[in-house]
Amino acid sequence: MLRIGVAVFTEKGFHNTPVDEIVAAAGVPKGSFAYYFGSKDAYTVQVIERYAEYFNKKLDRILSDATVEPIDRVKAFMDEATAGMERFQFRRGCLVGNLGQELAALDETFRGVLLATVQGWQARVRACLDEAQEMGQLSPSVDTDGLARLFWYAWEGAVLGAKLEKSRAPLDAVSEAFIGQLRALGNSTSRVEDPRPSKARATGKLARGGHVPRLPKSAAA
Amino acid sequence: MLRIGVAVFTEKGFHNTPVDEIVAAAGVPKGSFAYYFGSKDAYTVQVIERYAEYFNKKLDRILSDATVEPIDRVKAFMDEATAGMERFQFRRGCLVGNLGQELAALDETFRGVLLATVQGWQARVRACLDEAQEMGQLSPSVDTDGLARLFWYAWEGAVLGAKLEKSRAPLDAVSEAFIGQLRALGNSTSRVEDPRPSKARATGKLARGGHVPRLPKSAAA
Repeated sequence: MLRIGVAVFTEKGFHNTPVDEIVAAAGVPKGSFAYYFGSKDAYTVQVIERYAEYFNKKLDRILSDATVEPIDRVKAFMDEATAGMERFQFRRGCLVGNLGQELAALDETFRGVLLATVQGWQARVRACLDEAQEMGQLSPSVDTDGLARLFWYAWEGAVLGAKLEKSRAPLDAVSEAFIGQLRALGNSTSRVEDPRPSKARATGKLARGGHVPRLPKSAAA
Repeated sequence: MLRIGVAVFTEKGFHNTPVDEIVAAAGVPKGSFAYYFGSKDAYTVQVIERYAEYFNKKLDRILSDATVEPIDRVKAFMDEATAGMERFQFRRGCLVGNLGQELAALDETFRGVLLATVQGWQARVRACLDEAQEMGQLSPSVDTDGLARLFWYAWEGAVLGAKLEKSRAPLDAVSEAFIGQLRALGNSTSRVEDPRPSKARATGKLARGGHVPRLPKSAAA
């Protein structure tokens, strides 16, 4: 039932989706909806929380993958999210983007839940960028909090762009620009050398703990 | 009447605004609405076109101001747009952002009008960046079309962020990051020297035609 909410709200928005349509899609009687959720507003808050949780798990999986260097993890997230939008022909956007535009100015409860959601995502990207900083891939002077905030808003805009253009081009543009900026923030100001051998740098792969074990040549090939 | 549409759609969205509310706010009988516009959809297309035209004029004014260097013109636009959102306590977003999220996946007519609008804005920013490139402020290798597209989607995301945070912080974050990136694209790769004296560079002021006339000291002070 919450899954249906994610599907319809990301495509059609909140006000354009009557409860009748949700219960029909779920194949449950309207009385059950009222019993379990009380109101459409209460149901929508649960849909947002479910969506937040889903993305938190996805982000935790991708952004904590110590076998990949931190900046490449951010890129991996964008690649996966782009593939997700492509799967639905760019019809479904982001729930936070859709409901934020529709509801943030109208209802303080929704605004709070949506803001907490995007801030939870920002915190995860920030932690990943902090890791990049600790490893010397980002200069110590870089404001990782500001970068994480920039990332999410630019990404939300790109998701809107993908809906408008029915194309991945806006997602690719933001992805390239953001990753390019991160690389520039390392190259131009960082004094810390990348400790990995050139092969590992080229593939973006990194062993756990930031150290590449010495592998026999056959295993590395 | 179209002005009322901009006001209500940027704050409340399309589906949440019944025609009754629009005609009540305008103080006209519902019959007049039907007579002049035919349907809510047709009215909304006109509202979008009016909004596009309003922003086109604003962009033409700011981005063609030859007394300001091109990159500072882009910044001046963001400053003015930020002041505009602040004036409405960050309740009103961008019509393209709001209606794009709500309608792009549902209706090809709306998607076409909204896309044409944002592409018209992109073309104006691109022309300004082309000028920066001709003046040597951006490297010749920079993809100004891609940058203009990045700019608009990042900015749309920032407008969403400002609604969510009820704050100018997301707008400031995107503004600083984008202007910083433009400066970096000049500094790191451009081989063309800035022809202006250091005083003009510091204030960002530039005379028409890209040449600063020699002024007597009293006039320059």
